[in-house]
Amino acid sequence: MSKGRNLVGAALAAIHLALIAAKVAPTALFLALAMVPSAQADNLRGTGELRGTGDLGIAIERAKGSLQWLDTTKKVSLGRIEGLGDLSHASAVFSRDARHAYVFGRDGGLTKVDILTGQVAKRIIQSGNSIGGAISQDGRLIAAANYTPGGVKVFDSDTLELVADIPTESKVIGLEDLPGNRFAFSLWDKGEIWIADLADDPKQPKLTKFANIGTQPYDALISPDGRWYVAGLYGEPGIAVLDTWNLDAGVKRALPDYGKNEEKLPVYKMPHLETWAVAGNLAFIPGVGRHEVVIVDVSTWKQVGVIPVSGQPVFVMAQPDGRRLWVNFAFPNYDTVQVIDVPSQKIVHTLTPGKAVLHMEFTPRGEHVWLSVRDANRLEVYDTASFRKLAELPAEAPSGIFFSSRAHRFGL
Amino acid sequence: MSKGRNLVGAALAAIHLALIAAKVAPTALFLALAMVPSAQADNLRGTGELRGTGDLGIAIERAKGSLQWLDTTKKVSLGRIEGLGDLSHASAVFSRDARHAYVFGRDGGLTKVDILTGQVAKRIIQSGNSIGGAISQDGRLIAAANYTPGGVKVFDSDTLELVADIPTESKVIGLEDLPGNRFAFSLWDKGEIWIADLADDPKQPKLTKFANIGTQPYDALISPDGRWYVAGLYGEPGIAVLDTWNLDAGVKRALPDYGKNEEKLPVYKMPHLETWAVAGNLAFIPGVGRHEVVIVDVSTWKQVGVIPVSGQPVFVMAQPDGRRLWVNFAFPNYDTVQVIDVPSQKIVHTLTPGKAVLHMEFTPRGEHVWLSVRDANRLEVYDTASFRKLAELPAEAPSGIFFSSRAHRFGL
Repeated sequence: MSKGRNLVGAALAAIHLALIAAKVAPTALFLALAMVPSAQADNLRGTGELRGTGDLGIAIERAKGSLQWLDTTKKVSLGRIEGLGDLSHASAVFSRDARHAYVFGRDGGLTKVDILTGQVAKRIIQSGNSIGGAISQDGRLIAAANYTPGGVKVFDSDTLELVADIPTESKVIGLEDLPGNRFAFSLWDKGEIWIADLADDPKQPKLTKFANIGTQPYDALISPDGRWYVAGLYGEPGIAVLDTWNLDAGVKRALPDYGKNEEKLPVYKMPHLETWAVAGNLAFIPGVGRHEVVIVDVSTWKQVGVIPVSGQPVFVMAQPDGRRLWVNFAFPNYDTVQVIDVPSQKIVHTLTPGKAVLHMEFTPRGEHVWLSVRDANRLEVYDTASFRKLAELPAEAPSGIFFSSRAHRFGL
Repeated sequence: MSKGRNLVGAALAAIHLALIAAKVAPTALFLALAMVPSAQADNLRGTGELRGTGDLGIAIERAKGSLQWLDTTKKVSLGRIEGLGDLSHASAVFSRDARHAYVFGRDGGLTKVDILTGQVAKRIIQSGNSIGGAISQDGRLIAAANYTPGGVKVFDSDTLELVADIPTESKVIGLEDLPGNRFAFSLWDKGEIWIADLADDPKQPKLTKFANIGTQPYDALISPDGRWYVAGLYGEPGIAVLDTWNLDAGVKRALPDYGKNEEKLPVYKMPHLETWAVAGNLAFIPGVGRHEVVIVDVSTWKQVGVIPVSGQPVFVMAQPDGRRLWVNFAFPNYDTVQVIDVPSQKIVHTLTPGKAVLHMEFTPRGEHVWLSVRDANRLEVYDTASFRKLAELPAEAPSGIFFSSRAHRFGL
């Protein structure tokens, strides 16, 4: 742990942990809740309309435990899907036929949602407290990463019956799918990365363990091609990098200055690593506690530059065409989104959609981006070329937005 | 035109042209046709089963003018879809909701197929002779590239009504979608690349023209991120490269030795450029007339190596995880598929599925690959990790295979 971060003191660390754990949402979140009716609610519910599922999606309504059910072609909500429990730090993955979303809730709930009919197909409470999950390459297995009691549980994606239970004696974070029906994940309490191989027999996962990868991995990502597994470290500077094409080489440490905090900057939120931007051999990742996007050469895993931005970045997301990066920020700049041109590495546009832009999701080929503006209780849709706002949709304290095209990507 | 190629003589050139134009399929193709019944034919036709559309696809039955309608999860055919005209050199794109396929036929037919119900939704004859097409980034426009009478026609993807007609006074090839509702295409007779911008008013395409890009562009591709438009040249060695992020820089020539033929090697088939393999900054493209895959550094557009293979490559396709390349070949090695490991650049597996492996399509996250084996009248499905054959499906002289996840990608 760097000296700088130690000096920030225990109080700040406690805030970090609360934000990471997010067991308790900020009070402001509850105060901001208003009973906004869902404009197109319920009229299409369960009608079983015959339609393609490639342009559907969901947005988490974090405090209400519900989803907005979205059509990205018409840019409308098809209604609200309720009864998903505590979604204060929820994420979702999609079945390979793009019909079902699997939503991982903070309360350990795993809910299979039929986005064709807008109904909850199945719901189980699979642990006391979950942080997220993944779907296997072949779509048959759902893996959930758990805080309480820790470990990874693997379920049949059709029935949600338990297939395998992988105890870890640690909180598990950064669970990602790898090619070959494998899952990679990190152990917060132990500083380890594990790979579970379920290709041969899903009931008997083969485990490969990497120890001493760094202190308190707090989030991880897999590169879009499924090759690089990268864990951010909370307990010390730097990141842990595993080349899954060459497991024998082991986990390597990189970016030794990443997250260093000599200047005693308060870190309002540890940045998400679950997605990153890659253009050619360059990756763009959010600086920790700094008002900058860090540029990394993936061929060497060295920092090769920074791009100054107007706050502490949370998500740095590349448009599907790789041409521009969209960045949102932690408090107090969480009302702002900045857009960076990749070739010139310059900011070309700044938006201020409103307080607490929590997430951004691109349509699959990137013509539009959807933003969740939590305290304004709405989703906003923008044209990525003109930056023109195309639509606003009411949603109660929305957070994550997930489109069904994620079914076809690694690490989403 | 290189001296070597001139010496090969007019007869060979005529064969090339026949293969490129493919107006007349080889006689062998017709002889090999057998009345293989479609195993699961018709029992699901038109029932309008409520299902996701993310795991559906089609395979072209080139001589019969029909499609096999595919379910990639169950690895079965859902039936045959008939009445699509001359499909001897057909291709397809998908609507953004992944419900409809748009099939471009050799006879100028444009057929909108409902892959949810297995029915032809609409069909028009849009020209005398078409070579392929594309769908706009926003999914609203279908563009068709025409040989006779040349030019590009743009249609409403919903109604197939004509939106714009772009005369070119040339055969058009290599029509690809670009971000920003633009299309790029090449003019065989004029040696030009044009970009049509339909973002502001689809009825009034704004044209940007690049002249003197090389003699007889015969095919083109767009890189997976939609940035690089690359045309292969039939009339001379080399390729034409356009950086669509920097149109002011114009079209540049690259790979001056690509397609040179001093050794008077017969070229049995000009390789397809419509797809390529990219890993990091390296692209892997089929050598012309040579038994090799050419490695290109995309940052410089220089050849940096070759990988010897067992025939003249037609398609060099990367698994979605970028780890391996799958290569099929022209006559006489068209019964073979080779698999190359990207990190070591070595062949790790050779399959011989049977005569005339015409196409390969990966499932979206790459766990399986589907092959069309034309003269064996079947599709084959392989596990990409173990190379185990998982399924065989009867199909009459199958050629192109297209899965609905293409809806969410550029240039597919």
